[in-house]
Amino acid sequence: MQLFYFSQPAATDEILSLEKEDTRHITKVLRKKVGDAIHVTNGEGDLFDATIVQLTSNKCQLQLNHLRFEATKKPQLHIAIAPTKMNDRMEWFLEKSTELGITTITPLLCSNSERRNIKEERFEKIIISAMQQSLRLHKPKLNPLTPLHEFLETASEDLKLIAHCEETNKRHITELLDKKMDTLILIGPEGDFTPDEIEKALEHQFSPVHLGHTRLRTETAGIHVASLFNALIQ
Amino acid sequence: MQLFYFSQPAATDEILSLEKEDTRHITKVLRKKVGDAIHVTNGEGDLFDATIVQLTSNKCQLQLNHLRFEATKKPQLHIAIAPTKMNDRMEWFLEKSTELGITTITPLLCSNSERRNIKEERFEKIIISAMQQSLRLHKPKLNPLTPLHEFLETASEDLKLIAHCEETNKRHITELLDKKMDTLILIGPEGDFTPDEIEKALEHQFSPVHLGHTRLRTETAGIHVASLFNALIQ
Repeated sequence: MQLFYFSQPAATDEILSLEKEDTRHITKVLRKKVGDAIHVTNGEGDLFDATIVQLTSNKCQLQLNHLRFEATKKPQLHIAIAPTKMNDRMEWFLEKSTELGITTITPLLCSNSERRNIKEERFEKIIISAMQQSLRLHKPKLNPLTPLHEFLETASEDLKLIAHCEETNKRHITELLDKKMDTLILIGPEGDFTPDEIEKALEHQFSPVHLGHTRLRTETAGIHVASLFNALIQ
Repeated sequence: MQLFYFSQPAATDEILSLEKEDTRHITKVLRKKVGDAIHVTNGEGDLFDATIVQLTSNKCQLQLNHLRFEATKKPQLHIAIAPTKMNDRMEWFLEKSTELGITTITPLLCSNSERRNIKEERFEKIIISAMQQSLRLHKPKLNPLTPLHEFLETASEDLKLIAHCEETNKRHITELLDKKMDTLILIGPEGDFTPDEIEKALEHQFSPVHLGHTRLRTETAGIHVASLFNALIQ
């Protein structure tokens, strides 16, 4: 099954015009012809059977037929993570966590962040590509880069965790994860959260956790959490 | 803590000459001087305190002092995986699974393998770099590229699993993982194992497993297993 994404609202028996890049993929890579069928999702749970009714080198029109709606998986995982200094590491995190079923990603700006800007459009593309690849009908939500102190004020998940490297009394994440609880976890930059940031998070009812016996890179920590959560909600 | 690896046999109070690349790192990146101390491991569980006793642009001599020995973590995880068509995806698997504590990696040659050769020397470098980064004192073992049928004959772990995508009666991997059992899992190429390969594996007492509700890329499947095993043996 080859899955495509389009962001327009869902409607049955609609005619849909694909964007140039997807059209190129359909003609040049998949070598599809008029009359061929593909699958399409709106990233909000709807799956469509789509027949190609018009196709030129830069325009593809599809006749949609609604197949099914899939509700959002519960509970949900939200990872708020400081983008890595090397951009490709953050991009791998986006791809892998999307494949593994993450719901929301918030890039965090922390005191020790070496990267203080992100390419939101490129991040969005990577998420969409991984969503299509892994046949997910729900597109993870990517929030804008947000300063940690600001983010702490708005967090409202059932379970709020912070993974930091300070030597304090922390439990392993699997002791706290609960398959009935929407979960948010904070993952810091290469230089970790500052003691002040950790204190602020604890004041906001975040519980400190560790992620195991080896030292993990930022993006590995994120993928590790997504992986454990994926298995938890099986 | 900055950890270096050297492959020579362990001995206390030995003088050690580092290779050119590590010497370059010590002089150019870390800007270390004679008298400074670093940590060194032989990748077999030994940790040394090392003082720089001689340093030029391409030669670094260290005076070693044995600090401690760490036994191999039990149980052990062995992933036998078909290298991905895109080499960087396999390299990410090597890095992430090393960070997460894997013991042995066997690149597999399968019927549907699009990549039929590997750069062992480069793979080894990536593993060493990830071992140093994650402060592990045990270097994961990298086996040569091995044809699946040959590999099946020699596998001897307590628990032998195969993750394939055929629609058969499979249990989720977490139902079978056991923290008392050395585990081997087979992960196939982009085009999956063939029905014949799956049958051969089952004849050799491999149990079929699935890895969750989303479709995972080959390297993501590998990282996901390493992540679950890491949490299991906490």
